[in-house]
Amino acid sequence: MSLIGKEVQPFQAKAYHPVNDEFIDVTEESLKGQWSVVCFYPADFSFVCPTELEDLQEQYDTLKDLGVEVYSVSTDTHFVHKGWHDNSEKIGKIKYPMIGDPSGTVSRNFDVLNEESGLADRGTFVIDPDGVIQTVEINADGIGRDASIIVDKIKAAQYVRKNPGEVCPAKWEEGSETLTPSLDLVGKI
Amino acid sequence: MSLIGKEVQPFQAKAYHPVNDEFIDVTEESLKGQWSVVCFYPADFSFVCPTELEDLQEQYDTLKDLGVEVYSVSTDTHFVHKGWHDNSEKIGKIKYPMIGDPSGTVSRNFDVLNEESGLADRGTFVIDPDGVIQTVEINADGIGRDASIIVDKIKAAQYVRKNPGEVCPAKWEEGSETLTPSLDLVGKI
Amino acid sequence: MSLIGKEVQPFQAKAYHPVNDEFIDVTEESLKGQWSVVCFYPADFSFVCPTELEDLQEQYDTLKDLGVEVYSVSTDTHFVHKGWHDNSEKIGKIKYPMIGDPSGTVSRNFDVLNEESGLADRGTFVIDPDGVIQTVEINADGIGRDASIIVDKIKAAQYVRKNPGEVCPAKWEEGSETLTPSLDLVGKI
Amino acid sequence: MSLIGKEVQPFQAKAYHPVNDEFIDVTEESLKGQWSVVCFYPADFSFVCPTELEDLQEQYDTLKDLGVEVYSVSTDTHFVHKGWHDNSEKIGKIKYPMIGDPSGTVSRNFDVLNEESGLADRGTFVIDPDGVIQTVEINADGIGRDASIIVDKIKAAQYVRKNPGEVCPAKWEEGSETLTPSLDLVGKI
Amino acid sequence: MSLIGKEVQPFQAKAYHPVNDEFIDVTEESLKGQWSVVCFYPADFSFVCPTELEDLQEQYDTLKDLGVEVYSVSTDTHFVHKGWHDNSEKIGKIKYPMIGDPSGTVSRNFDVLNEESGLADRGTFVIDPDGVIQTVEINADGIGRDASIIVDKIKAAQYVRKNPGEVCPAKWEEGSETLTPSLDLVGKI
Amino acid sequence: MSLIGKEVQPFQAKAYHPVNDEFIDVTEESLKGQWSVVCFYPADFSFVCPTELEDLQEQYDTLKDLGVEVYSVSTDTHFVHKGWHDNSEKIGKIKYPMIGDPSGTVSRNFDVLNEESGLADRGTFVIDPDGVIQTVEINADGIGRDASIIVDKIKAAQYVRKNPGEVCPAKWEEGSETLTPSLDLVGKI
Amino acid sequence: MSLIGKEVQPFQAKAYHPVNDEFIDVTEESLKGQWSVVCFYPADFSFVCPTELEDLQEQYDTLKDLGVEVYSVSTDTHFVHKGWHDNSEKIGKIKYPMIGDPSGTVSRNFDVLNEESGLADRGTFVIDPDGVIQTVEINADGIGRDASIIVDKIKAAQYVRKNPGEVCPAKWEEGSETLTPSLDLVGKI
Amino acid sequence: MSLIGKEVQPFQAKAYHPVNDEFIDVTEESLKGQWSVVCFYPADFSFVCPTELEDLQEQYDTLKDLGVEVYSVSTDTHFVHKGWHDNSEKIGKIKYPMIGDPSGTVSRNFDVLNEESGLADRGTFVIDPDGVIQTVEINADGIGRDASIIVDKIKAAQYVRKNPGEVCPAKWEEGSETLTPSLDLVGKI
Amino acid sequence: MSLIGKEVQPFQAKAYHPVNDEFIDVTEESLKGQWSVVCFYPADFSFVCPTELEDLQEQYDTLKDLGVEVYSVSTDTHFVHKGWHDNSEKIGKIKYPMIGDPSGTVSRNFDVLNEESGLADRGTFVIDPDGVIQTVEINADGIGRDASIIVDKIKAAQYVRKNPGEVCPAKWEEGSETLTPSLDLVGKI
Amino acid sequence: MSLIGKEVQPFQAKAYHPVNDEFIDVTEESLKGQWSVVCFYPADFSFVCPTELEDLQEQYDTLKDLGVEVYSVSTDTHFVHKGWHDNSEKIGKIKYPMIGDPSGTVSRNFDVLNEESGLADRGTFVIDPDGVIQTVEINADGIGRDASIIVDKIKAAQYVRKNPGEVCPAKWEEGSETLTPSLDLVGKI
Repeated sequence: MSLIGKEVQPFQAKAYHPVNDEFIDVTEESLKGQWSVVCFYPADFSFVCPTELEDLQEQYDTLKDLGVEVYSVSTDTHFVHKGWHDNSEKIGKIKYPMIGDPSGTVSRNFDVLNEESGLADRGTFVIDPDGVIQTVEINADGIGRDASIIVDKIKAAQYVRKNPGEVCPAKWEEGSETLTPSLDLVGKI
Repeated sequence: MSLIGKEVQPFQAKAYHPVNDEFIDVTEESLKGQWSVVCFYPADFSFVCPTELEDLQEQYDTLKDLGVEVYSVSTDTHFVHKGWHDNSEKIGKIKYPMIGDPSGTVSRNFDVLNEESGLADRGTFVIDPDGVIQTVEINADGIGRDASIIVDKIKAAQYVRKNPGEVCPAKWEEGSETLTPSLDLVGKI
Repeated sequence: MSLIGKEVQPFQAKAYHPVNDEFIDVTEESLKGQWSVVCFYPADFSFVCPTELEDLQEQYDTLKDLGVEVYSVSTDTHFVHKGWHDNSEKIGKIKYPMIGDPSGTVSRNFDVLNEESGLADRGTFVIDPDGVIQTVEINADGIGRDASIIVDKIKAAQYVRKNPGEVCPAKWEEGSETLTPSLDLVGKI
Repeated sequence: MSLIGKEVQPFQAKAYHPVNDEFIDVTEESLKGQWSVVCFYPADFSFVCPTELEDLQEQYDTLKDLGVEVYSVSTDTHFVHKGWHDNSEKIGKIKYPMIGDPSGTVSRNFDVLNEESGLADRGTFVIDPDGVIQTVEINADGIGRDASIIVDKIKAAQYVRKNPGEVCPAKWEEGSETLTPSLDLVGKI
Repeated sequence: MSLIGKEVQPFQAKAYHPVNDEFIDVTEESLKGQWSVVCFYPADFSFVCPTELEDLQEQYDTLKDLGVEVYSVSTDTHFVHKGWHDNSEKIGKIKYPMIGDPSGTVSRNFDVLNEESGLADRGTFVIDPDGVIQTVEINADGIGRDASIIVDKIKAAQYVRKNPGEVCPAKWEEGSETLTPSLDLVGKI
Repeated sequence: MSLIGKEVQPFQAKAYHPVNDEFIDVTEESLKGQWSVVCFYPADFSFVCPTELEDLQEQYDTLKDLGVEVYSVSTDTHFVHKGWHDNSEKIGKIKYPMIGDPSGTVSRNFDVLNEESGLADRGTFVIDPDGVIQTVEINADGIGRDASIIVDKIKAAQYVRKNPGEVCPAKWEEGSETLTPSLDLVGKI
Repeated sequence: MSLIGKEVQPFQAKAYHPVNDEFIDVTEESLKGQWSVVCFYPADFSFVCPTELEDLQEQYDTLKDLGVEVYSVSTDTHFVHKGWHDNSEKIGKIKYPMIGDPSGTVSRNFDVLNEESGLADRGTFVIDPDGVIQTVEINADGIGRDASIIVDKIKAAQYVRKNPGEVCPAKWEEGSETLTPSLDLVGKI
Repeated sequence: MSLIGKEVQPFQAKAYHPVNDEFIDVTEESLKGQWSVVCFYPADFSFVCPTELEDLQEQYDTLKDLGVEVYSVSTDTHFVHKGWHDNSEKIGKIKYPMIGDPSGTVSRNFDVLNEESGLADRGTFVIDPDGVIQTVEINADGIGRDASIIVDKIKAAQYVRKNPGEVCPAKWEEGSETLTPSLDLVGKI
Repeated sequence: MSLIGKEVQPFQAKAYHPVNDEFIDVTEESLKGQWSVVCFYPADFSFVCPTELEDLQEQYDTLKDLGVEVYSVSTDTHFVHKGWHDNSEKIGKIKYPMIGDPSGTVSRNFDVLNEESGLADRGTFVIDPDGVIQTVEINADGIGRDASIIVDKIKAAQYVRKNPGEVCPAKWEEGSETLTPSLDLVGKI
Repeated sequence: MSLIGKEVQPFQAKAYHPVNDEFIDVTEESLKGQWSVVCFYPADFSFVCPTELEDLQEQYDTLKDLGVEVYSVSTDTHFVHKGWHDNSEKIGKIKYPMIGDPSGTVSRNFDVLNEESGLADRGTFVIDPDGVIQTVEINADGIGRDASIIVDKIKAAQYVRKNPGEVCPAKWEEGSETLTPSLDLVGKI
């Protein structure tokens, strides 16, 4: 049974927030009252990761406009997140909170902790304002994620939430026609 | 711990194959020796599903050219798949095998069976020629999947497999430059 | 120990009701307050099944006159029931509710779920207005059921319920003489 | 999960065989190599039972011609069966073996033992020459069984066994047309 | 540890009472307030049993005069008891209630049920007015019981109950001298 | 389930044998190859017991002639048995072995040990030459046993053993007619 | 962990008290309010035992003067104790209560029951007026106990109880100097 | 069940041997091939203990002549034993090995370890050349042991071992008459 | 997980306090309200130990001035501690309490008990006034501890406790500059 | 029980080795064949840690001359170790391998993982060439370690290893006199 439709389990974590250059507390409650994207990656100071996080930063303003907060998570500490932010050109651009998860609690809650390596899989989650997981995407190492897809998913999820009773067909994009499910549609589409 | 990097568990299933209008056997062995996309959806004769499956059909030639076979799976029987194929305009276009999973074995193997409803979540999986899961994507009801993204993921996954030691940064597209990980890159990208 | 004399276990299900072309909720409570026939079969869009269900439809008016509601059940969804009703000439005639049981809960409650195949055995049950099972009949694939026998069983069961203390000998038909059990009959009949 | 398609579990029993007025041994092996009807009833010297057993006797010649052996079973001993046969006019006509099951082993094997009362439910079973159960019918007290239906079921079961690949629609009677299942029939009948 | 001095465990049973030719209910409470003899035997319509039960009937008046009720018990039903009583010359003479124990509950309570055969051993029990077992006698098949011995045992048991503090030596018969235990007798008798 | 038809469980015991005024070993093997009567009683130097044991001694010659050995058993030691034999007039007459069972092993094997008091119930057992228990008789305190009955039981048991296929009716005495069970006798006696 | 300093566990027993030639009840409460010597031995009417018990009797007046009651215990019954007392010259002299322990409860409470033989080891215990065990002495068969030592132990134990804070050195005898423990004595004696 | 008649359980310990002023290894094997006295006491440098150990030393020559080795044991280390021996006048006289048991293994093997305090009870054990415990004596604090009694016990135990079949009555002393158990003695002594 | 930051578990122990030459009680509560050094060592009267304890005594005045109490602990008793103190020149100088732990409770609480030998490892613990362990140091046999290091650790721990928010760099000595952690220091020192 | 004297448990880890600026594999086998110092600390890019690691670096040449390899360990990855080494002035001086332990396996093996925080305690371990732990030192946060003490401990441990039978008194420094343990020293030092 997948995590779709399940509420995020409780956790407590420290994050590095680049905007005020400060350490903040983040819990499962922080994910409620607004839409959230939670983006796991294996390790600071390693490969691919920077480009994915940079790509996510490029969509950050758009996501903010949609009422979405972004959190990146690895099993590195918040100290290391600051150290990486201070020293990496790409990471230095990041403006969203970077959660440190050295105990692996957050990663376990999202079923993406590799217990053998102690590192998180590359999972991205869209969470609605009730703290309920709406989309899951996980890729093997070497297969990068495209942050613009997250924007599309958020828009579709927000539309469904605002318009209960309508459903989005595949490849739905903002403004296109959606379907209102009714018995007449059975076997007709 | 996610399914990424894990081999598909054994299963036995009947599928409706529209090309020869016949019923065929599919097992976990059928997924080996070529790339596969396995696309779960909740129910035949219901909403959204048809458009997603149609969208996947539109990418089917491209995927075939990349050496990829596509399988759709629901907990309906192969009889129902044929009945739906015969009677729905959109579904009638489908050319890939449609797996029937009334016992839920296949859906359970991919962790997408909702035991309460007896239906599968909307999960899409890319599987490499060794039967190992490379990507997972699962969406809540109402959030459609875009089949073109699958094509990009397949290409990235195939590149990494052919070029061990290189990694794809985010938003990688065919032909763009990839990264070869080395110690010099730590903290430099 | 057989199910005879046992009350139907709780369940919740969606059914397609052809009369108003709508989806309705059915529970174990729906089976109380009137006589019911519950008829399980393996799969929509498969063989034999249509003729059995059609045969049952032909007795439907008679059964209605006897105060009996009829329910067919398979592990297909209510969506598929509608799809089949819309597209099959024989099934299109059906006027009784068709229960969808994709999670297998109803079939398990009546001990007719084949866990390996995920399909129901061909079981027919007569249930009295207290929700208590009065007759069980189950056939292997290929052996059709004759709906007119159900009518006879209902009549016998209703007679016994109205006339406690009398019993029906074998081959009892409506109006024929019944037996009132007494000590004098021991070893005499 | 019902008993349909399951092989009869091992048992050892004594039976009274009226033809030679002798006691014989019956085991699950006795049920192989020919078709069998096994008819359970609650108690010798009680009501309804005699008429059902007499009804079965009236079909005995027909069943014998079809290669079928009949066994009646109650939790009375074989001594009591003889005593009843000697003293009851109706039972005195019986020519088939009457199995005594005082330990309840046979009744438990067919899931028809009421542990509280120590008596068997009114179950009738058709068993094929491999000892595999093909039909189950169980009625509450007061609802008699019609032995002529058993004859029809036997004929249908024998036809399917001789003609693998064909199936009998509902209300099939000897000589009427049967269906050969093929993909073309899906949704067409 | 034997059943001597233990109270009879609860049971519920149907008995055939020949005096009024009726079926009655018997429980462990029926055994209280008077002395009882409970006589188990394996099977109606079998051998030895009739002569033992007939022998018991011959002592019935004597036992009645001593305030004793007699119950015979087998795992046959009360229907069969009536059937046997109606048809056997010897059994037809019986005037005491014949308990039917098809579920084996009564026989298990007295530790005389042979679970393999489902039949009772040949046990005879004397029970005092408090429902407490005073004597046990069980014989293998083929070794008949002599009912006159029961009469002697009842008399001895009644004497001890009425005269607490006295004990009966071996071979005590009504009217003969009994012993009052005292310290002086230690090693003297 | 009673001990009838069960083989005696293994035990090791010391006995006082009055004939040679010696202590001997007795095991379950000692009970094989001849008929045995094993007579339990609660306590040496207590009441009733002496008269019962004296009564048994009076039948000892008769029993010896029938090929029967007699053993008395209490949870007293063999030392006490000798002490009692030396000092009690009645016990001094005894010629059969008196088993000491201070550990209660023998009494437990025959289900007559009262664990609370540590004493044996008044049980008498007839055992055949295969070490199989043929009759059980247990009385409450104060109800003496009549040794002459044992003689009758031995004779009946020996007759059945020598004449398999015949059975003894109740009150059988040596020389009287026995019954050979056959189907013709069912319901006739 | 030994029994020293532990309170005697609850028990209920019958004893033969020679003084009034009567049977009395003894419990763990009987051991409180005065000093007690409890002397276990294996078996009445066996060897050594008589001389040990006679020896204890010779010290009985001295012990009585010290406020000590003596109890002998074996797994024989109180009946046997009386029988032995009546018939043995040495035992006939005994004036202290002789506890019968056929169930072994008392012997188990003092950890001296040999479960295999059902007999007690030769243990002697001194118990203070609170029912607390002060000394344990157990010998193998053949090694007699010297009752005069018990007198010395009682005196030492009584002195320590009356003079808390003083301790008796080895070989202390009444009237000799005792030691009052203080820090100054460490390593000095 | 007491330790009498049981073989000493395996242990490994260091002891201080005053004779050569050295540390030696002692195991359960060291206790075999000669008689042993093992004397437990709570603590070095505490009260009573020195006088008991000194008293034992005074009997050491006598015991040696009888082929007996003496071991004292406390849960102190062998280092402390030497320290005590060096500094205490009384202990300085000791010539037998002093076992150190800081892990409590030896004390546990003899059931004299008080787990709460970590100290041994005042137990003395006589062990025969087969390593089998022959006598147990344990006293509460404040009740000294008299070593001369040990000498008497050793002599009695050695006599019994050399003269199997004879037993020592109470208060036996070397040279006095012993008893040879025979049936004639039962109840005579 | 180490003991650092954990509160000392409850214990009860006797100690020898040399100052008043008396025995005192010490519990985990004694360790609260002041700083404590608890120093475990294997055995009194053994090697190395004396020099370590002497070395600790030489720092005792300094530690007292810092508000620190010192406790030495071994599994020897408090009696032995006094005996050692009385007889060893080096140990005779000690002024701090010496805890006796013969049951091993204290050593187990600090995870330094070697269960096989029953002796403590050479562990030294600094405990703050809340009873919380601040430093652990354990050495193998033969590697002595330098008490002056303890003084440095105490000073550092006291400084941190008085100045929350500052941290001591390595090799901190009293009066040298400490660090106040702030985000600016990340990666800068 | 402490880790002193225990062999290091198996582990597999990646380390950053600054000398050749490369990633290397380290296992428990790497710790054998030479002396090792393993130094745990909580987190890269945090406080105190840098000064401790710098201090250790300053002793690195001395330790190398003594045949000692140094390993630092935190639950950060080897990627982060390199990132920190590249960007911190103090850490940039380090020449010894820095083990990454994101799964916590190494920290758990040395009992210094805080499972709640996912970080290691500040533990330092000296390990001999057999992989056996010789010293443990763990400090709370804020109490720095002095690397020069490690040098002293190594020297003492190496001396003891080379000179079995001698022991180092407290405060031993290279070249000072050591003690050879002998019985004469008991209580003399």
